[in-house]
Amino acid sequence: MAGNRAVVYTAPYTVQVQDIDYPKMEAKGKAISHGVILQILATNICGSDLHMYRGRTDLQPGTPVGHEITGMVIEKGSDVETLEIGDIVSVPFNISCGRCRNCKELDTQFCLSTNDLKPGGAYGYAEMGPWQGGQAEYVLVPYADFNLLKFPDREQAMERLLDLAMLSDIFPTGFHGAVTAGVEVGSTVYIAGAGPVGLCAAVSCYLLGAACVIVGDYNQERLDHAASTLGCETINIAEHEVITDQIAQVLKTPLVDCAIDAIGYEAHGHGHKANREVPSDALDTSVDVLRYGGTLGVPGVYMPIDSKGKTLHAKIGRPAFEFGRAWDKGLTISTGQVPVMRYNRKLMTSILFERVKLSRILNTTVISLDEAPEAYRQFEQGIAQKFVLNPHGVLKQPTVGADARVAIGV
Amino acid sequence: MAGNRAVVYTAPYTVQVQDIDYPKMEAKGKAISHGVILQILATNICGSDLHMYRGRTDLQPGTPVGHEITGMVIEKGSDVETLEIGDIVSVPFNISCGRCRNCKELDTQFCLSTNDLKPGGAYGYAEMGPWQGGQAEYVLVPYADFNLLKFPDREQAMERLLDLAMLSDIFPTGFHGAVTAGVEVGSTVYIAGAGPVGLCAAVSCYLLGAACVIVGDYNQERLDHAASTLGCETINIAEHEVITDQIAQVLKTPLVDCAIDAIGYEAHGHGHKANREVPSDALDTSVDVLRYGGTLGVPGVYMPIDSKGKTLHAKIGRPAFEFGRAWDKGLTISTGQVPVMRYNRKLMTSILFERVKLSRILNTTVISLDEAPEAYRQFEQGIAQKFVLNPHGVLKQPTVGADARVAIGV
Amino acid sequence: MAGNRAVVYTAPYTVQVQDIDYPKMEAKGKAISHGVILQILATNICGSDLHMYRGRTDLQPGTPVGHEITGMVIEKGSDVETLEIGDIVSVPFNISCGRCRNCKELDTQFCLSTNDLKPGGAYGYAEMGPWQGGQAEYVLVPYADFNLLKFPDREQAMERLLDLAMLSDIFPTGFHGAVTAGVEVGSTVYIAGAGPVGLCAAVSCYLLGAACVIVGDYNQERLDHAASTLGCETINIAEHEVITDQIAQVLKTPLVDCAIDAIGYEAHGHGHKANREVPSDALDTSVDVLRYGGTLGVPGVYMPIDSKGKTLHAKIGRPAFEFGRAWDKGLTISTGQVPVMRYNRKLMTSILFERVKLSRILNTTVISLDEAPEAYRQFEQGIAQKFVLNPHGVLKQPTVGADARVAIGV
Amino acid sequence: MAGNRAVVYTAPYTVQVQDIDYPKMEAKGKAISHGVILQILATNICGSDLHMYRGRTDLQPGTPVGHEITGMVIEKGSDVETLEIGDIVSVPFNISCGRCRNCKELDTQFCLSTNDLKPGGAYGYAEMGPWQGGQAEYVLVPYADFNLLKFPDREQAMERLLDLAMLSDIFPTGFHGAVTAGVEVGSTVYIAGAGPVGLCAAVSCYLLGAACVIVGDYNQERLDHAASTLGCETINIAEHEVITDQIAQVLKTPLVDCAIDAIGYEAHGHGHKANREVPSDALDTSVDVLRYGGTLGVPGVYMPIDSKGKTLHAKIGRPAFEFGRAWDKGLTISTGQVPVMRYNRKLMTSILFERVKLSRILNTTVISLDEAPEAYRQFEQGIAQKFVLNPHGVLKQPTVGADARVAIGV
Repeated sequence: MAGNRAVVYTAPYTVQVQDIDYPKMEAKGKAISHGVILQILATNICGSDLHMYRGRTDLQPGTPVGHEITGMVIEKGSDVETLEIGDIVSVPFNISCGRCRNCKELDTQFCLSTNDLKPGGAYGYAEMGPWQGGQAEYVLVPYADFNLLKFPDREQAMERLLDLAMLSDIFPTGFHGAVTAGVEVGSTVYIAGAGPVGLCAAVSCYLLGAACVIVGDYNQERLDHAASTLGCETINIAEHEVITDQIAQVLKTPLVDCAIDAIGYEAHGHGHKANREVPSDALDTSVDVLRYGGTLGVPGVYMPIDSKGKTLHAKIGRPAFEFGRAWDKGLTISTGQVPVMRYNRKLMTSILFERVKLSRILNTTVISLDEAPEAYRQFEQGIAQKFVLNPHGVLKQPTVGADARVAIGV
Repeated sequence: MAGNRAVVYTAPYTVQVQDIDYPKMEAKGKAISHGVILQILATNICGSDLHMYRGRTDLQPGTPVGHEITGMVIEKGSDVETLEIGDIVSVPFNISCGRCRNCKELDTQFCLSTNDLKPGGAYGYAEMGPWQGGQAEYVLVPYADFNLLKFPDREQAMERLLDLAMLSDIFPTGFHGAVTAGVEVGSTVYIAGAGPVGLCAAVSCYLLGAACVIVGDYNQERLDHAASTLGCETINIAEHEVITDQIAQVLKTPLVDCAIDAIGYEAHGHGHKANREVPSDALDTSVDVLRYGGTLGVPGVYMPIDSKGKTLHAKIGRPAFEFGRAWDKGLTISTGQVPVMRYNRKLMTSILFERVKLSRILNTTVISLDEAPEAYRQFEQGIAQKFVLNPHGVLKQPTVGADARVAIGV
Repeated sequence: MAGNRAVVYTAPYTVQVQDIDYPKMEAKGKAISHGVILQILATNICGSDLHMYRGRTDLQPGTPVGHEITGMVIEKGSDVETLEIGDIVSVPFNISCGRCRNCKELDTQFCLSTNDLKPGGAYGYAEMGPWQGGQAEYVLVPYADFNLLKFPDREQAMERLLDLAMLSDIFPTGFHGAVTAGVEVGSTVYIAGAGPVGLCAAVSCYLLGAACVIVGDYNQERLDHAASTLGCETINIAEHEVITDQIAQVLKTPLVDCAIDAIGYEAHGHGHKANREVPSDALDTSVDVLRYGGTLGVPGVYMPIDSKGKTLHAKIGRPAFEFGRAWDKGLTISTGQVPVMRYNRKLMTSILFERVKLSRILNTTVISLDEAPEAYRQFEQGIAQKFVLNPHGVLKQPTVGADARVAIGV
Repeated sequence: MAGNRAVVYTAPYTVQVQDIDYPKMEAKGKAISHGVILQILATNICGSDLHMYRGRTDLQPGTPVGHEITGMVIEKGSDVETLEIGDIVSVPFNISCGRCRNCKELDTQFCLSTNDLKPGGAYGYAEMGPWQGGQAEYVLVPYADFNLLKFPDREQAMERLLDLAMLSDIFPTGFHGAVTAGVEVGSTVYIAGAGPVGLCAAVSCYLLGAACVIVGDYNQERLDHAASTLGCETINIAEHEVITDQIAQVLKTPLVDCAIDAIGYEAHGHGHKANREVPSDALDTSVDVLRYGGTLGVPGVYMPIDSKGKTLHAKIGRPAFEFGRAWDKGLTISTGQVPVMRYNRKLMTSILFERVKLSRILNTTVISLDEAPEAYRQFEQGIAQKFVLNPHGVLKQPTVGADARVAIGV
């Protein structure tokens, strides 16, 4: 039997590559027939991994991490019907049974049976069940027929693997943000945050037909990247106290139709507060820039408890944003993790028909498993790159300067 | 020319009946051809009038108040096409022009032209434009063709006027709460607040097919009324620290599909905090009782500024509720005033075909204009009645004991 | 091992009760671990069974029929996780794998793996796969975790079994008709056909908040039943050439918001054509009575081929209805079988909280398996009853005169 | 007072430019205060004008035609509030009052007061009311505040006038087809017809995120144009009997998610029937190529009566398409004219932010009023051009070879 090397969280600000057990076809302590073992071909470091990396969750040291997984089926249970050995598949980070009420309503992010602690399971994540993390060589996927998205053509999949690797979490997460923000043809949008989620939200806005996308961040490198690869308008929020004035310069009106908070509870302030955490800042700015009757999607994470929170309210999950003003404006606010399965097939189709190329947009950088600890360190510092681990050496570094944009044919 | 008597706000906790001018066919200081003058047949005191009555807004003393108006057309401008003298009509409390972007998208609650201060106009209301209040004998309705809902048959309308009088605000407000909470056939619902908005939300839940409606309040009289007239399940929140335990007793599960905050920023606490204002309590309870992926409608009012707020956060419109937990549960939160025009025709039809009778549900009490000051006083104390002013003496007191329930034929 | 008696189609207008094999835990010729064997507690004769009974399909003689099944789990495969021996469950007539694209999008009526002939499998039905019919003592349900709806409480389920028995097909079918017809609070509705599907559509309209439901049929007995148990308005279409005139008598306007064709391709004409099949009549009448911009739901079945069709166009599945007029009116037409899983949980909840009682509405009649041949004969003649087979003697005849209506608490 | 020259229908296959009256500020025989007079800057010839041109409607000879109008306000009624003299505006072809039930529900295509014959008014169109046609120098627009879409910036509007001219009908018509066909991110789409409506539908599909758009026509010139300017896949339906085979060559699967019938009742057949009218052909092909559970949008016109129809069924508006098969596949079919006001603002925004450039896609050709008769002749022959009349000489011919495509920034 093969070994299995994996990225393991060992202490705040520390991950190590360690040997772990090769996956067994078991779940909850008993043998299963509905699972598959994947050879992992691509597995990405996610912004939400940083919550754990920084020690802002109660993840146990010694836990293998990672939940953005793309792989090849190398072993399958007797009950698996739709998958064959050798199939290339995308793994939604939500682990869903396909048998509970929530899964049957496609709220797979709240599966009632894959996590004893609360609804919703995931690979290698704090409080989301006992599932092995996916920044590894091999992993078990339970309920494989329900969970996995099979790419229709193996060769085509291998060619676009770096794009397809974004289907397990970050692309659907950004898309969910855009959808729940009500983005549609002709919309004007403000996105708080130009990190990978913000970029994926921006791409998604364009796919949904947005007319103008404005991204705000205090990191000028990230803003420049959003402008050059996606054609977004940008606002450096560290330089401005009144964001609506900057929006008015772009739109001739200070308010947008839709807003997306792609930052979450670790938000910095803006203007003279840009150098410190202000947990309500992304929400407050979103409320501020939205037109009356507008909609706010919040893919950025907020936590019920954050022992490292900078204020008392932050510690107890009460960011104390301007809800009174949101009510006065009649806003709708949509929160929570994405149900990947609602979107991954249609986003896969967009990739396969070349409507969207993510690699350069996200500044994808292929690294070996052994480079993961250094990549975590850089990513935590805010480097404008998306790291993809390459445990079996099948990924190629994307060509520098490859064109990121795709004509929609219009 | 006739005189015009009206209920006028004169100081915190004081309204008086005074003579005011008979309405002119004018708006923004110039003659208009699109308006009508109504003889007011019914005009209700609304819970939101209490915000002004208590001095918690910046309404100027001397302002005639009231915005729930039903009347008869007695004068019409030359451009009015769909209405005739003698027509009986319901007046949406939102004053909308039918010509701006928001009105054309049916966001009539955010009309861009009837209020210079911010989007959205209303009759006799703080910060909602210069329009005469409707607790009076006569009132001007501008943009009459667009605004008014004409009852199809005069005689039929006069017979059901006490029910139809609820179409101008409170019934659509409750319905909007239920709709935005995602209530549908088979839903289980928790409603925070058994006042008139809570009761209208409960009626609306049943109309939308809800399987079980649970209402929470600390006022036992209101709860008893909800149980006896509507068949709601009830929870006295003053008596319980853990609301989900009480829900589990009704549903065999501690969580509901949908929640409606029908209280707003003047919420009391629950359990041992029931005797004082806790501005986040209705929101926190709603977040607590909702299932993962659930939806929260908030017809209860929250204010950007509340100088009488009990906490610093309350004063600046930041109720500091458990947003982190809401995010973790993936909730959607929908806020703001109702666009009455989206619902009033269908609710009128429900009344005219006798699917719903509101008078007894709301404990409607008909009073004269002169009794308004005393009615405000009692209503502010929490009396379980809905007062309807009868400026022209055409309303009859509803029969005591008339059946409130209507079979849906199922 | 137990025997298994079943209702078997033997020739046009003939079914017989015969001994068949006890179900094996197998599908497509191989052993499965995801199935359960049910002891059937209730199994209904459906209007669509009559298409086969009349020889208007190519069902092979010797096939056990029946697809409306409620039962108790008595055997389960090793991969079944959410069900226990003794659980009482409702079986959606659509057999769905929960693993193909269509099932994952909840289009379970078009499962891609349970029928080799075309998308969509069912029990005991022409062209819908090799699955044993459910008018029997025992039946296999594959993919049991995904397919089955478990009733939360065994005792409560046994008490309401006659109502819950309608969840496997006819109640969701009627509800789908109402939903796809766009029925909502305040709607006026015309339903073509007062048979069981028409009655279930009418119940569903009320649950969805319809203000007025008008049912048309040429069978006066069925109309009287709809009026007396549901309070529907009725039109005997055999007596009138112009249906809109009759609608105008009820509504004061000749057009309705929504229409439901609960008849399908075996429609009779109306007026002087009421005594013969006119395949386009239900569609033409629906188009005629709908308001401009209205919506038509078509739960009534239309067939691609009908060798017994009365016209050349009917034989080749082209009913030649007034599509030009439908276009001129801007109608939307929604067709096809119901995906039961989208609705059965919420309708179950409505039954369990006593919002709706179906037994008397449908004139439910409990009979033994041996009485099935006679029941088919009577049902084919248009008797206003819904026959429920009682293979294991656990059902009780409903009390005559039990109240069909349920207050919605309004 | 100025004169007014207009394109007038005089006989089948004949239009002439004639002098007509300058518009009066009147409607229904009386003076109005809600109208404006426009100097027409651009007015297009529409495919639906050909129905009248060919004598297939009962339009009276002597009627000025044209309903795609863009102009400048040069006179306004006293009740007009949101428009100023000199504003550049798009005129929705639907004339809507903004005061009836249908307008208040945004079904402006079925306005109840602008046409005595049936719901829905338009400029210069058979059976759609007495309104002057817009292929003229000047025209009256009633209910101007409600009807007109004002371009935010005059200079910007003049620069993009040829694109903005498509907002009055054809772009929203194509968009409505795509929306009602359920097109969304990742969809695969078949469009029957590569004329201007088909092209606008294709553009709209891309704006909505479609992954692959396949257009079918028997006119190779049109197909080549769709391929070269939009990147569509194409099928020459004259050369193939089995369209699904051709689709399979593109998609690796024979069925599409969505279909759009952009042809209507004058459809030619396909394969060996391509040389003659087959009124059901576009519908039959759409039913054939759609996946189970798919959706069909029908912007192509079907008529209740067509005295020139090629079959008896065609004459009486019964195209006799395969409805049985549509039912078996569970299709939804959406028909009728577009309510322009639902879409024109968002499409205008898409144009103004340069997400879409229509001029070259539609092969826009600017001509003088006097060239209209010849343009009608060529357009009727199927020339792949969109003619825009230039009554006041402000339009410039688009640059040959200007790039039609716009990067979506992805």
